[in-house]
Amino acid sequence: MPSRDLSPYGDHQPAISAPSPKHAELVALNLLGSTDRAALGRLMRLWSTDIVALTEGRPTPGDTAPELAVPNAALTVTVGFGPRVFTRPGLTAYKPRGLDELPVMRHDRLLPTWSGGDLLIQVGADDPVSVVHAVRRLVADAAPFAKPVWRQTGFWNGTGPDGKPVTGRNLFGQVDGTGNPAVGTPEFDATVWADGPEWFRGGTTLVVRRIRMNLDTWDELTRSEQERAVGRKLATGAPVTGTTEHDELDLQARDADGRLMIAENAHSRLSHHSTNDGRRIFRKGLNYVQDTGASRESGLIFLSYQADVAGQFLPLLARLDAADALNEWTTTIGSAVFAIPPGWHEDGWLARDLLV
Amino acid sequence: MPSRDLSPYGDHQPAISAPSPKHAELVALNLLGSTDRAALGRLMRLWSTDIVALTEGRPTPGDTAPELAVPNAALTVTVGFGPRVFTRPGLTAYKPRGLDELPVMRHDRLLPTWSGGDLLIQVGADDPVSVVHAVRRLVADAAPFAKPVWRQTGFWNGTGPDGKPVTGRNLFGQVDGTGNPAVGTPEFDATVWADGPEWFRGGTTLVVRRIRMNLDTWDELTRSEQERAVGRKLATGAPVTGTTEHDELDLQARDADGRLMIAENAHSRLSHHSTNDGRRIFRKGLNYVQDTGASRESGLIFLSYQADVAGQFLPLLARLDAADALNEWTTTIGSAVFAIPPGWHEDGWLARDLLV
Repeated sequence: MPSRDLSPYGDHQPAISAPSPKHAELVALNLLGSTDRAALGRLMRLWSTDIVALTEGRPTPGDTAPELAVPNAALTVTVGFGPRVFTRPGLTAYKPRGLDELPVMRHDRLLPTWSGGDLLIQVGADDPVSVVHAVRRLVADAAPFAKPVWRQTGFWNGTGPDGKPVTGRNLFGQVDGTGNPAVGTPEFDATVWADGPEWFRGGTTLVVRRIRMNLDTWDELTRSEQERAVGRKLATGAPVTGTTEHDELDLQARDADGRLMIAENAHSRLSHHSTNDGRRIFRKGLNYVQDTGASRESGLIFLSYQADVAGQFLPLLARLDAADALNEWTTTIGSAVFAIPPGWHEDGWLARDLLV
Repeated sequence: MPSRDLSPYGDHQPAISAPSPKHAELVALNLLGSTDRAALGRLMRLWSTDIVALTEGRPTPGDTAPELAVPNAALTVTVGFGPRVFTRPGLTAYKPRGLDELPVMRHDRLLPTWSGGDLLIQVGADDPVSVVHAVRRLVADAAPFAKPVWRQTGFWNGTGPDGKPVTGRNLFGQVDGTGNPAVGTPEFDATVWADGPEWFRGGTTLVVRRIRMNLDTWDELTRSEQERAVGRKLATGAPVTGTTEHDELDLQARDADGRLMIAENAHSRLSHHSTNDGRRIFRKGLNYVQDTGASRESGLIFLSYQADVAGQFLPLLARLDAADALNEWTTTIGSAVFAIPPGWHEDGWLARDLLV
């Protein structure tokens, strides 16, 4: 059986361009008042050691449950810095351009429980036991430096019944993520990797939006109403103007009555890069369910990677907030933004160029 | 790729003797006042149709997200009846012997949120999207008859790094479930399957206990203290008196100082069938984590199957409550008991012999 484990090393943190994990947990932490630039550097050295061990399926130094560290779980860890990190002494000059908390949109109903944060840990793996174990180690080792403020857990199925990779579906049943630039293309690189400031070259920014989905009212629609709201077919994810998932949208096509086949307010039209001055994002998602006693909330942890959050993501967000047909069944209840430092090599550690 | 899907038909509901699912959700529902014996029969016919479809990877009749029903997800559904069902008119004569809510133990800190219930649905699968979809269909179809009262979600890793089956570990890091009778043996059959009343032949009873585990205080122990509390080695799950996982416990062995190697209060001694008049249980587990804002609770959804809950499980529970060393780090916060009707064949449906 070939190993599914990725290398922890590289020019970029490895999970970003990897397939979505089956399971993931995101933890946001706030820095303690005593965590200055030097202390943040100590935490990053500590986490780098942990991340190399966990990614390779080994226990961390001082691991209290070493048997829960297992190889071949495709475990990855991604670390990010929230905007407030760059208000700390010695760090203000290094803030990536446009890295600010997002403005509150008209349709947002943000809860502090799911918003903001100074540091992000995102752990993904094939198996939740591995995720829970890795998060526990990383949070424990961060205790002298930072405290958790929120945790979000999600799941994704990117494997078809025949074992081959698929785009995956959200809990509305939609194929979700078709419009992404393909990993490894120049377009992907231009979309995702930042080219400055110096320490941040090869990094990216991540927007995390917790989007509540009203499955009950969505289910009251007919399938053609559901397909009209998105502009894609439920069965295949193909545009309503096409036949296979990756067919280009025909944004001009009209039906026999002269109506646009992909409606003016269809999600796929408004989020298409041609309507965003050609600027793209690289988005992933994790389904979530959240239980409160007997009642259940369902939704999507929306994850968007882009070189420049203000330039690429914000205009898109504003346009979707203004007109997206899906707004009737979705409500964003959490929002956070993180700079994702570049990767590191055997002789380095996370964000060293920022923190030495 | 061979299908991982089980047949929905058989003498027994199929998940019971199958390996633990990677993901599972348990939902307890209470019957509405209007749900009499005939209405319960209608619900069981409806659920039987749903269960056959979902197990075979097909949408249910009227499925609002049919694309989320996929084959090869190893999906199973198990249904149970709580003790109160047998207080309803026409059903009082059919109660399985000993099927009562468990008495509250001295160490229990039961919360109504996680306790009791008239009906149980337990859905397991390789993938959480399949679990969430199936539960949604079953709960929606039950709406005219019953309302959810609690939901519990858990996960288990029964696959080793080499892809082979393993017993699996709980969040303390312990190999958990070694002492079970082996599926398919006469001992398993005698332990699990009830032989009466008539309608219940081939059924079993299920105890669901939600056990909170204090990982923080557990982690303060040395490894040898942890191993002493259980009487098994952390690395392999072998008894401290043995070398491999399935070695028999040597309950008489003493160390050089004359002390019992498996202590009087060690969990593995107190739960061993030889100390329970030879009576056994068949137990499974699901790890859980439950987040409240930034804080996390961890634990185990303990599942015990036995022909006779009063005769096989209760004496064991009482003995563990009185003396188990693990009580210091574990607290049961939920408890429920269900009769699990036998399986059904192509021409039948769930619990038909009780409800026609």
